Amino acid sequence: MRKLKMGMIGGGKNAFIGAVHRIAANMDGLIELHCGAFSSNPEVSLESGKELGLSEDKCYGSYTQMIETEAKLAPEQRMDFVSIVTPNHAHFAPAMLALENGFHVVLDKPMTLSLAEAKLLEQKVKETGLYLCLTHTYAGYPMVKQARSLVAENHLGKIRKIMVEYPQGWLSTDFENNGNKQAAWRTDPSKSGISGCMGDIGTHAAHLAEYISGLKITQICADINTVVANRRLDDDGNVLLKFDNGANGILVASQIAAGEENSLKIKVYGEKGGLEWHQMEPNTLIVKWLDSPAQLYRTGNGYLSPEAAFNTRIPSGHPEGYLEAFGNLYKNFALTLQSKLEGKEPTALMLDFPTVQDGVRGMAFIENVIASGKSSQKWTEFSV
Amino acid sequence: MRKLKMGMIGGGKNAFIGAVHRIAANMDGLIELHCGAFSSNPEVSLESGKELGLSEDKCYGSYTQMIETEAKLAPEQRMDFVSIVTPNHAHFAPAMLALENGFHVVLDKPMTLSLAEAKLLEQKVKETGLYLCLTHTYAGYPMVKQARSLVAENHLGKIRKIMVEYPQGWLSTDFENNGNKQAAWRTDPSKSGISGCMGDIGTHAAHLAEYISGLKITQICADINTVVANRRLDDDGNVLLKFDNGANGILVASQIAAGEENSLKIKVYGEKGGLEWHQMEPNTLIVKWLDSPAQLYRTGNGYLSPEAAFNTRIPSGHPEGYLEAFGNLYKNFALTLQSKLEGKEPTALMLDFPTVQDGVRGMAFIENVIASGKSSQKWTEFSV
Amino acid sequence: MRKLKMGMIGGGKNAFIGAVHRIAANMDGLIELHCGAFSSNPEVSLESGKELGLSEDKCYGSYTQMIETEAKLAPEQRMDFVSIVTPNHAHFAPAMLALENGFHVVLDKPMTLSLAEAKLLEQKVKETGLYLCLTHTYAGYPMVKQARSLVAENHLGKIRKIMVEYPQGWLSTDFENNGNKQAAWRTDPSKSGISGCMGDIGTHAAHLAEYISGLKITQICADINTVVANRRLDDDGNVLLKFDNGANGILVASQIAAGEENSLKIKVYGEKGGLEWHQMEPNTLIVKWLDSPAQLYRTGNGYLSPEAAFNTRIPSGHPEGYLEAFGNLYKNFALTLQSKLEGKEPTALMLDFPTVQDGVRGMAFIENVIASGKSSQKWTEFSV
Amino acid sequence: MRKLKMGMIGGGKNAFIGAVHRIAANMDGLIELHCGAFSSNPEVSLESGKELGLSEDKCYGSYTQMIETEAKLAPEQRMDFVSIVTPNHAHFAPAMLALENGFHVVLDKPMTLSLAEAKLLEQKVKETGLYLCLTHTYAGYPMVKQARSLVAENHLGKIRKIMVEYPQGWLSTDFENNGNKQAAWRTDPSKSGISGCMGDIGTHAAHLAEYISGLKITQICADINTVVANRRLDDDGNVLLKFDNGANGILVASQIAAGEENSLKIKVYGEKGGLEWHQMEPNTLIVKWLDSPAQLYRTGNGYLSPEAAFNTRIPSGHPEGYLEAFGNLYKNFALTLQSKLEGKEPTALMLDFPTVQDGVRGMAFIENVIASGKSSQKWTEFSV
Repeated sequence: MRKLKMGMIGGGKNAFIGAVHRIAANMDGLIELHCGAFSSNPEVSLESGKELGLSEDKCYGSYTQMIETEAKLAPEQRMDFVSIVTPNHAHFAPAMLALENGFHVVLDKPMTLSLAEAKLLEQKVKETGLYLCLTHTYAGYPMVKQARSLVAENHLGKIRKIMVEYPQGWLSTDFENNGNKQAAWRTDPSKSGISGCMGDIGTHAAHLAEYISGLKITQICADINTVVANRRLDDDGNVLLKFDNGANGILVASQIAAGEENSLKIKVYGEKGGLEWHQMEPNTLIVKWLDSPAQLYRTGNGYLSPEAAFNTRIPSGHPEGYLEAFGNLYKNFALTLQSKLEGKEPTALMLDFPTVQDGVRGMAFIENVIASGKSSQKWTEFSV
Repeated sequence: MRKLKMGMIGGGKNAFIGAVHRIAANMDGLIELHCGAFSSNPEVSLESGKELGLSEDKCYGSYTQMIETEAKLAPEQRMDFVSIVTPNHAHFAPAMLALENGFHVVLDKPMTLSLAEAKLLEQKVKETGLYLCLTHTYAGYPMVKQARSLVAENHLGKIRKIMVEYPQGWLSTDFENNGNKQAAWRTDPSKSGISGCMGDIGTHAAHLAEYISGLKITQICADINTVVANRRLDDDGNVLLKFDNGANGILVASQIAAGEENSLKIKVYGEKGGLEWHQMEPNTLIVKWLDSPAQLYRTGNGYLSPEAAFNTRIPSGHPEGYLEAFGNLYKNFALTLQSKLEGKEPTALMLDFPTVQDGVRGMAFIENVIASGKSSQKWTEFSV
Repeated sequence: MRKLKMGMIGGGKNAFIGAVHRIAANMDGLIELHCGAFSSNPEVSLESGKELGLSEDKCYGSYTQMIETEAKLAPEQRMDFVSIVTPNHAHFAPAMLALENGFHVVLDKPMTLSLAEAKLLEQKVKETGLYLCLTHTYAGYPMVKQARSLVAENHLGKIRKIMVEYPQGWLSTDFENNGNKQAAWRTDPSKSGISGCMGDIGTHAAHLAEYISGLKITQICADINTVVANRRLDDDGNVLLKFDNGANGILVASQIAAGEENSLKIKVYGEKGGLEWHQMEPNTLIVKWLDSPAQLYRTGNGYLSPEAAFNTRIPSGHPEGYLEAFGNLYKNFALTLQSKLEGKEPTALMLDFPTVQDGVRGMAFIENVIASGKSSQKWTEFSV
Repeated sequence: MRKLKMGMIGGGKNAFIGAVHRIAANMDGLIELHCGAFSSNPEVSLESGKELGLSEDKCYGSYTQMIETEAKLAPEQRMDFVSIVTPNHAHFAPAMLALENGFHVVLDKPMTLSLAEAKLLEQKVKETGLYLCLTHTYAGYPMVKQARSLVAENHLGKIRKIMVEYPQGWLSTDFENNGNKQAAWRTDPSKSGISGCMGDIGTHAAHLAEYISGLKITQICADINTVVANRRLDDDGNVLLKFDNGANGILVASQIAAGEENSLKIKVYGEKGGLEWHQMEPNTLIVKWLDSPAQLYRTGNGYLSPEAAFNTRIPSGHPEGYLEAFGNLYKNFALTLQSKLEGKEPTALMLDFPTVQDGVRGMAFIENVIASGKSSQKWTEFSV
């Protein structure tokens, strides 16, 4: 079993999310950093790559150069996949070029700038048979997988209601005008697209609701707000939801919830019971029942589902966190690619990572939620 | 200082909420049960009253008889106030009769069957100068008062967002058809009015949001649901909110959230910080700040506001609960009446109990939220 | 069913614990304040009684006068029991006098100043057949009773280990020299006896461990400390325990644990599972299992034991607290006395309050733990 | 900056702790697996190494062969350090051989089988100037470092009391006789040494108490138990502690606390406040004050100490866990070695990992605590 070779696009010096991707990719020893176009500035790219231990010839000046050069190498020598960790506006082009050149793709969410772009990527993935992994990190947590299993196995009965909230406080002030690079691009329509908060974290919340429940959102009614003066994109919103089985729901995403860190929480209620999960204490899943005591499902125990167990590295009581959840996306993606390399069909457990279809739904969520926010009509169909 | 004499309407044998009122009224030794019309069935009323230690002549066969008889007694011998603990449809008439006969009133929420009735009561209270205390119990918790103080003193800055949720699970099944008396009347329009869940607990949530924030709801957009088949009133709903200072919010109330007990929670965010309170762990108020560690304000400590301190009986670390919160409404109401009896003006601390105006807003909430639920338009003005 | 008549000894104006006793006694409408010797100062006693609504002739100048006067009244007119809420040094004499005159007794813990006194009371209770209720409040919580039931019914298997801790911080400074009355007598050997912290809260912890587990402490090894300079009694201690079934344990009590409020916690482990209870969040009992998810038992639910249900007033999710736990002692004591008055045998549920035997064990705990603290030998037999 | 080359001793196929070490070492991209003697069985070692992507010549048949062979390579080609992840009885010899051959060492705790061996290693480290990192993982958590900083900067005042508890339940049954390999060697004196529970987790608890407080244990009084029948080593114990500034404490370690996962908790109290940390929710540090609300210090925030910040990888609200704490030990060790390689003095932040001195104290703890457990005298001096 050889390590998979990763080519990174973006993630140069001081780029936070690039480092997270590298830790996640490093974690299980399945992947090695092979090359990178770490910055649109070739010097920064070179410097970043060298700091990361790459030789000069593997530090490319542009993603175009990297993809085209690597594509010409022998299969065993070229990169196996690209990992794209740039701001949103720089997702589509490199992803498409990578796919066109036969490379699998790991891509940050939201997938593109528009739903139309997303559908083009989806089409290309279909055509090529390549894999695209979209980094909806929260779907990588073992207790999220346990929640999904409990619903899928009908322990809760028919799902009736979903409450998902994602309050953050980091954009409570006009941080974007005070030198914070991430705040700057997240609030810049040319880099983020038509939505700020809903694109950045609303998509995570929507994905989580659909992932755990196995349901699809069919209608939304959104109140989309820009709370901080002069900000150019939304920084807050509340959304009523309807799902395809008739369940209702509510989704709140906010980046002006002063004092909140990254407080994603979800509650799902069925006919027979409910479940509750908090990202900031991710190793506990609270399962509530109509007539018996609530239960605390905990990461790493023998009673968990195969999906939860497969995405856990250490024994119960030894907390796993965000990096492990992120690592699970990379691990499953890598195991899928390795299976393919070895001529085997990947298992369902390996294939359990967010895909280009999730990316399409995410972009549809953004477009629908922003449209609903502008509408005076209550319900907007969730069209894809 | 003599004990105030309470005449109870409703609350006969096995009536849950009557017992709660009596415990709350007993607690501080300020009030004594003087008489009662505990049931519309005179025999049950008599039996109930005797069990409670009343003499036969103080067990009335009807509230009309009680009010009219007591009104003829000398001031020192008659009851001072009535406490009405009947289902909603039997709130207005006895409350009005009591006021007309010069008796103060304690009344369960929602105040009446309709906004129109509520306004009549409001008018009568104004005319008579009598006091009406509406039992929005949650406003009686010391940490709720602390939250209100923190907002009022501008510690959080301008309020931007309020999230209030009130999930219960007790109506997850068609309990009303299985002999549960409270479920039966709560889901019966002739007894509850036009709303079930929103009337019962949605009003609590709305009151709490306004009480803590000092803001008023101005617009709503409601998704009102009847989830359990054949139920006659709503058992679930999600509501988008706008407040009079421009803040936005979300209110969720549900009685089909399987496995939930009485999980009222509120989060309020301002420019400088946020606060969070959970009714099921009521002695902790979490206060979050932009750039410093979150703080745990706890009942009974020296650093609390006068309002919190005034509504606390025991030292920190000795948990107070729902009955004490309920007792605070009675205590403040009783202190107000005693002040009046002694010819003194009640202090602001004494007057801190929900009033007929809160009842009017509660009824307006019900009518607006049900209207919004039926509307295809997004926003409905909150009209009173 | 008539109300029981309570005569109070101690608990005059501004005495904290007297007010707590009165709220607890008031709560369920089973008991009325009949008379009192609220202070050793007759004027203060009179003033206190009048504030509480008593007529002058029921405000006695001394407990001797009260007991002797009341004893001469007709059975239906005299008090039924005394409630003694004085500092420790004033427990024995009034309790003994009350028993000698045929009155039942409610008594604050620790029961007396010495084990010898405690045994005299025990003997007197046996002789007279009267009831003595010792206010180990924490044994009144419904989830403590649930814990006791789970152990008694062998759900946890043989008990192996008990960890009980009771940290408070209120004596972190030399509060007793700064005008705090309670601190003053708690740290004064002439009023508290030979122990401060261990007598005040160590006894609660020891009682709780024995009450839940059904075991008896047989050996102790104590480290007893006086941390604040010049304090005259212990303010902190750590104790190794052995129980009569071979289980081991640890008991920590401290009043110099700066920042702690009243953080009594207990963990009990058996062969098959463990349980955990925190006084500051008393409505949850965490039950842990070897091979399945931990469970949250919660006050007020249908799945609880008869003992837990009997000591609960309101539905699940409506938190009950310290005053309700205290009220449960009074309620069960009152129901026991009423049964006797009605010529019926009290049920086991009624008799579930701490007794003179618990008081004897509490005094033995104090004497043994202080002796062990002074010994250079590891284990001290727990002799009674 | 080149990656450091790690040679692993132990940690072959299916060995849990070896995988943990590799994840921890991989995480930050500072270290690469260079070679290994993964098993005392050369075939298993070869197979394990190949699975990990090593070439055959880097899969050694024994640690002796590995150390001697590597020592002969040119500095840039040989391993930089060994990581020893074998059971306790196989710690001393390879560590000593590595040091003698000029290799730095990472070593699992407890450091050796006896205090005497530990002192030999300490002596050798002193002689050689090489680094030894002992993997007391819990000292790697950022909030533990924050706790240490708060104490060191005297925010809590003089420390008075420390309560540390470490309950696990995994040895509640005779797991060692049912095929569990880790249980088997942990309970085997020939592999674990003179102590089971105290050696495995008691040492962690003792280290944590000393690390956070900056104090040293000076006296102990231990109750050491073997609860499960026929087990050959202790599986439970309670220890009274005295510290060198006069503070007292309690240490509980148990592996028969049924239902507990890995529930290490510590509370430290000073004159002015206290702090509390739970390993299972490691990103929160609760800091309590005498007269103001308790505070929640949380990983990743700007208000934390440099030590906490240096050991954090991701923003607040994104939970870090056990693997990140473990990774911090490797990261700091690696940065120290790199500094040396670059001829620079490592900073205090880099040098913040447990050392051979901690290992000596850990072995002294084991020997003293077992001796005290056998003694009938209360206090045993903590001799090193």
